[in-house]
Amino acid sequence: MKLNADLGESFGAWQQSQDVALFPYIDQANLACGFHAADPITMQASVTQAVAHQVQIGAHPGYPDLVGFGRRSLACSPDEIYALILYQLGALEAFCRAAGTCVAYVKPHGALYTDMMHQPTVFTAICQALADYAQKSQHPPLPLMVLSQPDNTQARTLAAPYQIPLLWEVFADRQYQADGSLTPRTQAHACHTQVEQVLTQVQALVQKRRFAGMASALEADSLCIHGDHPHAVLFAQAIRQYLQQAL
Amino acid sequence: MKLNADLGESFGAWQQSQDVALFPYIDQANLACGFHAADPITMQASVTQAVAHQVQIGAHPGYPDLVGFGRRSLACSPDEIYALILYQLGALEAFCRAAGTCVAYVKPHGALYTDMMHQPTVFTAICQALADYAQKSQHPPLPLMVLSQPDNTQARTLAAPYQIPLLWEVFADRQYQADGSLTPRTQAHACHTQVEQVLTQVQALVQKRRFAGMASALEADSLCIHGDHPHAVLFAQAIRQYLQQAL
Amino acid sequence: MKLNADLGESFGAWQQSQDVALFPYIDQANLACGFHAADPITMQASVTQAVAHQVQIGAHPGYPDLVGFGRRSLACSPDEIYALILYQLGALEAFCRAAGTCVAYVKPHGALYTDMMHQPTVFTAICQALADYAQKSQHPPLPLMVLSQPDNTQARTLAAPYQIPLLWEVFADRQYQADGSLTPRTQAHACHTQVEQVLTQVQALVQKRRFAGMASALEADSLCIHGDHPHAVLFAQAIRQYLQQAL
Amino acid sequence: MKLNADLGESFGAWQQSQDVALFPYIDQANLACGFHAADPITMQASVTQAVAHQVQIGAHPGYPDLVGFGRRSLACSPDEIYALILYQLGALEAFCRAAGTCVAYVKPHGALYTDMMHQPTVFTAICQALADYAQKSQHPPLPLMVLSQPDNTQARTLAAPYQIPLLWEVFADRQYQADGSLTPRTQAHACHTQVEQVLTQVQALVQKRRFAGMASALEADSLCIHGDHPHAVLFAQAIRQYLQQAL
Repeated sequence: MKLNADLGESFGAWQQSQDVALFPYIDQANLACGFHAADPITMQASVTQAVAHQVQIGAHPGYPDLVGFGRRSLACSPDEIYALILYQLGALEAFCRAAGTCVAYVKPHGALYTDMMHQPTVFTAICQALADYAQKSQHPPLPLMVLSQPDNTQARTLAAPYQIPLLWEVFADRQYQADGSLTPRTQAHACHTQVEQVLTQVQALVQKRRFAGMASALEADSLCIHGDHPHAVLFAQAIRQYLQQAL
Repeated sequence: MKLNADLGESFGAWQQSQDVALFPYIDQANLACGFHAADPITMQASVTQAVAHQVQIGAHPGYPDLVGFGRRSLACSPDEIYALILYQLGALEAFCRAAGTCVAYVKPHGALYTDMMHQPTVFTAICQALADYAQKSQHPPLPLMVLSQPDNTQARTLAAPYQIPLLWEVFADRQYQADGSLTPRTQAHACHTQVEQVLTQVQALVQKRRFAGMASALEADSLCIHGDHPHAVLFAQAIRQYLQQAL
Repeated sequence: MKLNADLGESFGAWQQSQDVALFPYIDQANLACGFHAADPITMQASVTQAVAHQVQIGAHPGYPDLVGFGRRSLACSPDEIYALILYQLGALEAFCRAAGTCVAYVKPHGALYTDMMHQPTVFTAICQALADYAQKSQHPPLPLMVLSQPDNTQARTLAAPYQIPLLWEVFADRQYQADGSLTPRTQAHACHTQVEQVLTQVQALVQKRRFAGMASALEADSLCIHGDHPHAVLFAQAIRQYLQQAL
Repeated sequence: MKLNADLGESFGAWQQSQDVALFPYIDQANLACGFHAADPITMQASVTQAVAHQVQIGAHPGYPDLVGFGRRSLACSPDEIYALILYQLGALEAFCRAAGTCVAYVKPHGALYTDMMHQPTVFTAICQALADYAQKSQHPPLPLMVLSQPDNTQARTLAAPYQIPLLWEVFADRQYQADGSLTPRTQAHACHTQVEQVLTQVQALVQKRRFAGMASALEADSLCIHGDHPHAVLFAQAIRQYLQQAL
């Protein structure tokens, strides 16, 4: 079980300084690629940090919407999705290559992540981009990080023809409902505020892949914590400590 | 002697349709990377065209200034230059990789090209980016296309510590002055308008590396024609025909 | 009955030169405001042209999406819609004020126009912006140009509390279906290609507010022609000539 | 003597929350207009705050460079300067108008402010924009806030033909040199860090328009403090208290 966070989300003079504090505790950093956040200087600095802390680098592409931080759905065609994935992935890859490393996986951001889970044409456009990025250059395909749900059949079925490995993501700091879906952010208690809540959830996920009351288990490869949460560093420290003991 | 052109400079709904007509006649396409022109869809289409016509692909990075088409100098720090080169180079590389090819060289665009020739800190920031892009990943460094001048000592001296090969560019459709520098665009006759003028200049450059009246020869690896010139296709056809007979 | 067109849709070096040719034939120019097209220089030039030809100026605000030309729906909140309408309206108003004129009406562009017609929260956010723009400064509210449909009850009901006058728009160069709705662009024949088709449609709209086979009449204040149609100038000339004789 | 600050410099999700805390202590808020910082929602909120605190609103237009926060000089033509001033001024004016107020003055931001003080063509392009904004609509021209220097002859001479009133700005939190110019930011001690330093400087400026050792007096209409300084609120409180007693 890995621990991942969305990082590198500064933009020019607007700094998200918590980034640096999280790197020591995580395994995987999803780095913004300039469309919803980050700029070339920020990306270069984030890759340098990730390498220094031996953290895997994931591309975190989003819709081209800095003002909306990539949280607003944009009605893109599959061709547009395909192209914006390649563009952002390549931009981040250049900084990785200059630092002697490679992008290790891809996790779409915000509304693009949500749209990917709800719209098969978005999901397959992303898979097509990752398949083409690998195939002709004889690289192995990059894994795609997706939301783990009680029934992951659809995602698995959509990815199979493209031979894209899937990384199942679960959330450490978001509340789940009894059916295994995330509590919508519009509801109270959608996000945990206490370290104890987070730890209890992480323990249940790591040990049983489910919580008290959940009907079925969740596949899980990586736990996500949100880097912009005011207690993100506390949460990350506690989870890291637990994972080191438990695994 | 190669023939190069700046292509792929559409942006969204604003199409520069002449691109497609030029591909059959050129050897090297300098493709915009999204900062001064082009968008992901345009880049994908341009790479596809280049591969279909067996044309070498050069990254054509510019300042982040779509409104100004990258023609306005922007006071960037060397760190910013370094990072914007890597970002744009990587974005284009992703489309090349998905098409089974690679970026073959880099030619900065517009004001960035001019600033590179006048400001050593800009020149070396670009060299540093290309050196880092190559070194840790054990790729050979990409050549940098620069303006050939009567005395190329400065560019050669600046590039040497980074081991960046230089491609000397001369212009087929811009008038030269007796000292080997380009006639400023603010003057009349700065750009040729007749095929005969272009051909005469190309012949002189290919055969003698100089024109009547020029004191010294110009190193030359590649002839540039401007894709947005109304007669660009005519010029390209004529130059291609001449080069095929001459070389 | 007025004739309107979407103009001023150049962006930086990417020029839509047909604009200038259309001004002599239209009554109302919907001018882009920098979010889906246009830049400050373009807006200044378009306002100057409109004033020279005594053409009414309409603000033509769109989603912030230059790459997509404002044709992709963006999931904005009502507060975001409200603010982006005011921003773009004000930007255009400044050029009008410097030219001694005023913005005369507002017509949202592309996906924002479509979303306004389908989503009441978008429609009312726009009305709120126009009401606030007028009320405290004791200006009369600017009219909002909307799509005329066989039943205009919803638009009229939504606008009434804000006291926003509506301008009913019909299309000269788009085909209508028997129920009075526009033929979707995905279908063949969605756009007219012949002057005769356009003129026949305009005559039916002007004289009877309906076409052969249409069940009910369409309210109509202004006829739209698309400035980017290859025959736009021809269409505009023919419509102008007809309107001068008929009215 | 007024107290001004650059505010409204959030951008989308990137919030500069100190803004709200400064409004009670200042007389004039220079509000970003979307080119170097701010977005429509931010501008609307900032105008609302300014009105609530009865603070004068100044337009704070910058170069179109969000990534660089408008701090990088961009080689714009006078026509481009003219148009980008009008665009940003108008955008802010719309929010003012919807709130029942008006833009009261204009203070260019960052590199545009610096370029205005060093390049007469930039200065006069801005004056031309303000003159045109006023003249045909029979409004009085908006004042332009400029850097007060020991010799203000040039600015006064450039502004006179356009009949633009000038507001002389001095800095409360930047160190001055003996010749009356600002200590460059590249030097240590360029910015004050202690309330006492700021207060001493403000007292000298208010009472004598000069500091110990300064050869000549500085004209001064408004004191600037930087809203992004970590002690900005402390500084503002102290200055406000002093000004209330002194004036």
